[in-house]
Amino acid sequence: MRLHTTVDHGVVGEVATAIAEAGGMVTAIDVAESSSSRLTVDVTCSAADAEHAAELQAAVAAVEGVEVHKVSDRTFLIHLGGKIEVASKVPLKTRDDMSLAYTPGVGRVSMAIAENPDDVRRLTIKGNAVAVVTDGSAVLGLGNIGPGAALPVMEGKAALFKRFGEIDAWPICLDTQDTDEIVRAVELIAPGFGGINLEDIAAPRCFEIEARLRERLDIPVFHDDQHGTAIVVLAALTNALRVVKKEVGAARVVVSGGGAAGTAIVKLLLAAGVNDVVVVDRNGALVAGDAGLSAAHEELAGLTNAERRSGGLQQVLEGADVFIGVSAPGILKPEWIRTMAADPVVFALANPDPEVDPAAAARFAAVVASGRSDFPNQVNNVLAFPGVFRGLLDARASEVTMEMMLRAADAIAHVVRDDELNASFIMPSVFHPEVHHAVAAAIAGG
Amino acid sequence: MRLHTTVDHGVVGEVATAIAEAGGMVTAIDVAESSSSRLTVDVTCSAADAEHAAELQAAVAAVEGVEVHKVSDRTFLIHLGGKIEVASKVPLKTRDDMSLAYTPGVGRVSMAIAENPDDVRRLTIKGNAVAVVTDGSAVLGLGNIGPGAALPVMEGKAALFKRFGEIDAWPICLDTQDTDEIVRAVELIAPGFGGINLEDIAAPRCFEIEARLRERLDIPVFHDDQHGTAIVVLAALTNALRVVKKEVGAARVVVSGGGAAGTAIVKLLLAAGVNDVVVVDRNGALVAGDAGLSAAHEELAGLTNAERRSGGLQQVLEGADVFIGVSAPGILKPEWIRTMAADPVVFALANPDPEVDPAAAARFAAVVASGRSDFPNQVNNVLAFPGVFRGLLDARASEVTMEMMLRAADAIAHVVRDDELNASFIMPSVFHPEVHHAVAAAIAGG
Repeated sequence: MRLHTTVDHGVVGEVATAIAEAGGMVTAIDVAESSSSRLTVDVTCSAADAEHAAELQAAVAAVEGVEVHKVSDRTFLIHLGGKIEVASKVPLKTRDDMSLAYTPGVGRVSMAIAENPDDVRRLTIKGNAVAVVTDGSAVLGLGNIGPGAALPVMEGKAALFKRFGEIDAWPICLDTQDTDEIVRAVELIAPGFGGINLEDIAAPRCFEIEARLRERLDIPVFHDDQHGTAIVVLAALTNALRVVKKEVGAARVVVSGGGAAGTAIVKLLLAAGVNDVVVVDRNGALVAGDAGLSAAHEELAGLTNAERRSGGLQQVLEGADVFIGVSAPGILKPEWIRTMAADPVVFALANPDPEVDPAAAARFAAVVASGRSDFPNQVNNVLAFPGVFRGLLDARASEVTMEMMLRAADAIAHVVRDDELNASFIMPSVFHPEVHHAVAAAIAGG
Repeated sequence: MRLHTTVDHGVVGEVATAIAEAGGMVTAIDVAESSSSRLTVDVTCSAADAEHAAELQAAVAAVEGVEVHKVSDRTFLIHLGGKIEVASKVPLKTRDDMSLAYTPGVGRVSMAIAENPDDVRRLTIKGNAVAVVTDGSAVLGLGNIGPGAALPVMEGKAALFKRFGEIDAWPICLDTQDTDEIVRAVELIAPGFGGINLEDIAAPRCFEIEARLRERLDIPVFHDDQHGTAIVVLAALTNALRVVKKEVGAARVVVSGGGAAGTAIVKLLLAAGVNDVVVVDRNGALVAGDAGLSAAHEELAGLTNAERRSGGLQQVLEGADVFIGVSAPGILKPEWIRTMAADPVVFALANPDPEVDPAAAARFAAVVASGRSDFPNQVNNVLAFPGVFRGLLDARASEVTMEMMLRAADAIAHVVRDDELNASFIMPSVFHPEVHHAVAAAIAGG
């Protein structure tokens, strides 16, 4: 907070006291400017959350002689000017440098590619670049906020691609939500990229967009909200079942949420050998043939719930081995977990607030995981997408296959060694030095 | 050249001799690998051009016991893997870092932009990013080589944007040459960019594409082949006329080439006060109302050649003060310059081979300029586009105006001080420490 205060040497102490009494922690105070009539005081302090920050601001403003001129926070400060940049990999200090990197030397490289189009991957960024494409229609837990507001998330994604996958990813925020226009736009920009990461595009449009692009393009197309989530969930499930010593083929799984993530999770689990999956959405269990099901839900119902179980989450959960939530906050009451099979596994992945509080769930479940970083067993897509695309680019793959995704999930799961594996440690950290290489090798290897 | 040779310690010397006798210069020899049957020898040498390099290769291959296994050159070597990369500007070493740059912190930034869309420039890369957009239809002097082959040139452009303008530019190579599709694609990607640089898109489509995008977008759109060229040509002309002490309003100018560059040059010169311009294209001088003129040429003819002069370049050049060539190699015979007015100015800017050899022209002209870096007075767009976009981004401009371009040209011209200005020094170097700032200030200032 930048404060304008009266020139009173007691005022700084009063500000510090006010912050402390309101439960904040002062980390720095700077008298930045001073005149005969006014002091400018920069106060940096920690708040528990945005609400608490507002309380601290009010407490400071209430101090006599103090006006709060401007408030920032670390998050906003690091976003100033954006979080990514373009850097040249070649020197441009002399005319000689420029004649190699630009005209006339670059003309020879262009001609070489014109004569041998396959050389484009070797001689340009196409061999290492991924477009992070969104229309801003389903951004994090914020919903349809549009392409401009989505850009900070896409920049963050690009920064993570570089940090963990050494991939050059660039955000492409599209000013349309029309399926045909999105498909065509991505097709048109594809020449400069080695892969397409679709991000935060709402279901059910995301299914058609991905399917049509996969058909049209000779570079891989991967909707992370679908398949990245599915890969990390399968990895977590693999390890959770190792902990509770159950076979994947014998597990009864309930998936809450039939959207982008839920659909992809179901398909990957089935490919991994899960035999018994029931999907529960807002109106209860999806049963094939039920009236009023959307086309996407009818397809999902057709792949699952062979026994045609019906009812709400509570009913369907009885006797189940595994709950996987990719739906909404608070819809799973902790006591329902008691009705599950012995040693139940609960993945409550709704973001930012899970289906059930992980600590409450841990009273009844053998293994609990969530998307949150402040509980054990964080199921985090960052474990998947950098290594997935690293492997796809290294292999010069033209598509993503189910087999690749199964191998990637297996690689993530087995980064956790037998002697490390336990109910509070089923997933490696995103900072684990081996996990991203392991995923890339699994994708490329096969 | 990587050579495989017999294990004969004289062979390396024979290779060096062969290169020297063929006029090459050996800069390095490495025996990279050795076995009982074979040596692998890496030889690095300088050649005058691609043709000479082929001669050197043949000379080496002719040495007994030598097989040329693989040939590279510096230009290709620096292009391996592409010339640009994406870098994160924020730390991502700890979970705390990630919670600011990515979830959950980034969500607050996205919401802030959703509530105040104007904040997008301050909080994202949009404030500093430019898309370098091409369809590959008119790349350098190579013609229609398509989007993939154009990518090295676009990467080079992006590297120059960073080096001289501190701008984050990303190549967008479009897989279409349809005007409507190009316009729509750029419209759709615009949310993440603060400006659009159109590049190497053939006339006459480039005129309509730029005009329609300028109308539709609230960020500036600038076709560098048109306006960057026009700006540097005007700067060069300004200084050439200072040298020969002629007034801009009194100069008779002949422009050879009625394409993208020629059209933009004419319009900027007219705005700068030139009164007498004749455009000569393949079929001679453009005269308004002539049969068979394209729409673009009819428009150009209507703006120029009020005296309705006709004929080929030779006729129209008689008595002219200035020749500006943006056309084809070798079409201007040096002796024709003698028929121009006293102290003629000749800009032979066709790339890579100019309309007339600059040395030959210098025998008859008072001031000669070209696009080549191996002669004095290089007229180089790199003097313009980085500073132009820097100024546009700094000013958060929504468009590029004629006035801005006039100021930019004037700024470039006046970087050359009176005491520096002479017939062999009318343009600053692209490495001049002030020129790009001067251009940016002129664009933003006005």
